[in-house]
Amino acid sequence: VILLFTDYGMADPYVGQIKAVLARVAPGVPVIDLLHACPDFNAHAGAHLLAALARDIPAGAVFFCVVDPGVGSPRAAVVVEADGQYFVGPDNGLMSLIAIRAKQVRLWRIDWLPDRLSDTFHGRDLFAPIAGSLAQGAFPAEKLSPITRLEVVFADEDLGRVLYIDHYGNAWTGHRAGPLTQPDTAVRLNGQVLGYCRTFAEAERGRAFWHVNSAGLLEICANRARADELLGVRIGDRVELLVARDGRLH
Amino acid sequence: VILLFTDYGMADPYVGQIKAVLARVAPGVPVIDLLHACPDFNAHAGAHLLAALARDIPAGAVFFCVVDPGVGSPRAAVVVEADGQYFVGPDNGLMSLIAIRAKQVRLWRIDWLPDRLSDTFHGRDLFAPIAGSLAQGAFPAEKLSPITRLEVVFADEDLGRVLYIDHYGNAWTGHRAGPLTQPDTAVRLNGQVLGYCRTFAEAERGRAFWHVNSAGLLEICANRARADELLGVRIGDRVELLVARDGRLH
Amino acid sequence: VILLFTDYGMADPYVGQIKAVLARVAPGVPVIDLLHACPDFNAHAGAHLLAALARDIPAGAVFFCVVDPGVGSPRAAVVVEADGQYFVGPDNGLMSLIAIRAKQVRLWRIDWLPDRLSDTFHGRDLFAPIAGSLAQGAFPAEKLSPITRLEVVFADEDLGRVLYIDHYGNAWTGHRAGPLTQPDTAVRLNGQVLGYCRTFAEAERGRAFWHVNSAGLLEICANRARADELLGVRIGDRVELLVARDGRLH
Repeated sequence: VILLFTDYGMADPYVGQIKAVLARVAPGVPVIDLLHACPDFNAHAGAHLLAALARDIPAGAVFFCVVDPGVGSPRAAVVVEADGQYFVGPDNGLMSLIAIRAKQVRLWRIDWLPDRLSDTFHGRDLFAPIAGSLAQGAFPAEKLSPITRLEVVFADEDLGRVLYIDHYGNAWTGHRAGPLTQPDTAVRLNGQVLGYCRTFAEAERGRAFWHVNSAGLLEICANRARADELLGVRIGDRVELLVARDGRLH
Repeated sequence: VILLFTDYGMADPYVGQIKAVLARVAPGVPVIDLLHACPDFNAHAGAHLLAALARDIPAGAVFFCVVDPGVGSPRAAVVVEADGQYFVGPDNGLMSLIAIRAKQVRLWRIDWLPDRLSDTFHGRDLFAPIAGSLAQGAFPAEKLSPITRLEVVFADEDLGRVLYIDHYGNAWTGHRAGPLTQPDTAVRLNGQVLGYCRTFAEAERGRAFWHVNSAGLLEICANRARADELLGVRIGDRVELLVARDGRLH
Repeated sequence: VILLFTDYGMADPYVGQIKAVLARVAPGVPVIDLLHACPDFNAHAGAHLLAALARDIPAGAVFFCVVDPGVGSPRAAVVVEADGQYFVGPDNGLMSLIAIRAKQVRLWRIDWLPDRLSDTFHGRDLFAPIAGSLAQGAFPAEKLSPITRLEVVFADEDLGRVLYIDHYGNAWTGHRAGPLTQPDTAVRLNGQVLGYCRTFAEAERGRAFWHVNSAGLLEICANRARADELLGVRIGDRVELLVARDGRLH
């Protein structure tokens, strides 16, 4: 199976063009749109989202990962194998958290140049053929050179910012579930302090709260209301955790 | 074939996560996005839309139906078999019109708890595995208990309100084609009275009219213009039928 | 493979209804959403977009092409075979540039009436069954009559207007790459004159430029900014090429 993770959007022809290539290179392999609404050009937010979403996908899957404002510049093209999943895309940090968090990693640079390489759509011309070959189980060794590190790497720490706002108005953050995201933790965002609820149905209608979402990330939301509008949330807004200790929030 | 009917939207990762589960549970079964733009949290509008859209799908199809603001609360999870089609989703009325209108119905409650059940995404963790099994022809009897009625049931009468507004600005209502939707019927909406046209091409450019749409529902539209903007239409607006009798509209 | 090219949008149920028909008529044939965001009702823009996007798709593909404001009127329904690709849709000019530019063309009128033909959704009732048969390799000769010309034909010249604006804010025009689109060509749009850059990464951040996009069309864009907002671009805006000659732009 091939999963697509991009900032291409769903409306434009780009996703269809990728799928047309994959249908040719890897006929019969299912292709799934995982996310095409990664914040535009934002490899940093994308790295956190990709790592969270890939967590639930079994080994063997191939991820086509393209958030690539540097397309056409000399930035490298790479393949990452991380705990049995494959990731294909630009070496701009997008796949670096996947690589850092994995137990077993192998890295390759894509050395191959296709017969036709457009200046601005390497997704179609370069990454899709490689992803298709991998998904077919035909490792394209002649097109890849082993490397030992990625050029751009983000720190493997939770990102205390809003990464994504879904169509309900829920705001995903980079904070992962863990010791600091307990029911007595409070969250500060845009000057407001929010408490925890386990489910939407538990929350008072129209009031904002935080919970750990289904991808394992701390999310700001509201029951039957748009948290983004209630709180004026935008991508990149800072999200602080206030942990209860000695009866006070810190 | 599995058809997805939700309020998840197309932009967010939720649909892709569902498809990743289905690819695992029911490999090779085609999955079709029927509607992900059901009005958010609105099981009542969804029930009318689902019944209209399911009408044209052959028996044997499995519908994954999730408009589920009560996720995580004690609301039941059910399977409805209606005239040979299967529907999987929450027991919140969404599938009740399907059940009422069918000639033959069987009902089950989902008793199974998956190894991992998130608090807020039963679509992925609970409903998708059940839908996948059904689509594979493997009836998961050990996970289901026969029941005799749904908890939440909507009345089987046409809903005289705007249910959905498409991207052209056409407004779908809950009124179904029938004795009251004749060419001499007029429709009142937001203080305006609209006449009938059979097709867009028949209508004067820029003027609003009503017709019976391809799903069998009364729709308000305009030729090469946005009816929603012309008339200030919003989801939930009341739509009255004025039937000609004795030379007058009633 | 079947490629869908429409103005249906991705959010509405129309695409899913088409796919449900295709799953029945042509089981196992991959269906790809090429573009559902063709400007609404705009067969002229659609003709240029379709010709550009079809260029990269191999022979044998079947295109379902529906931008059809005249649905329900007496406009004809046709099949175009152009250099081994098939196109199914209304005879309103949408497929005329494909036909003009091809080396080998065959044309048919669809004479068949399905058992149920809605007034407003021939995509589902008429075009999808024909496209499905073609994609199965079962040429539906009994439903088609050879014809010698299309009723509506657009001139085969570049369209010097904005055809499409993608979600990044890049504006596709109808100008094709050729002798007039050289690096020293300038482009005038809404009173502003823009120079050329080969890639986004080459351009100064936030400044608009033009390049030849991956579909072979002249595109107006900006590095990490929305060209449509910078320049106030809308679908249909005029785009002029200023060619350098004698040291001046003409």
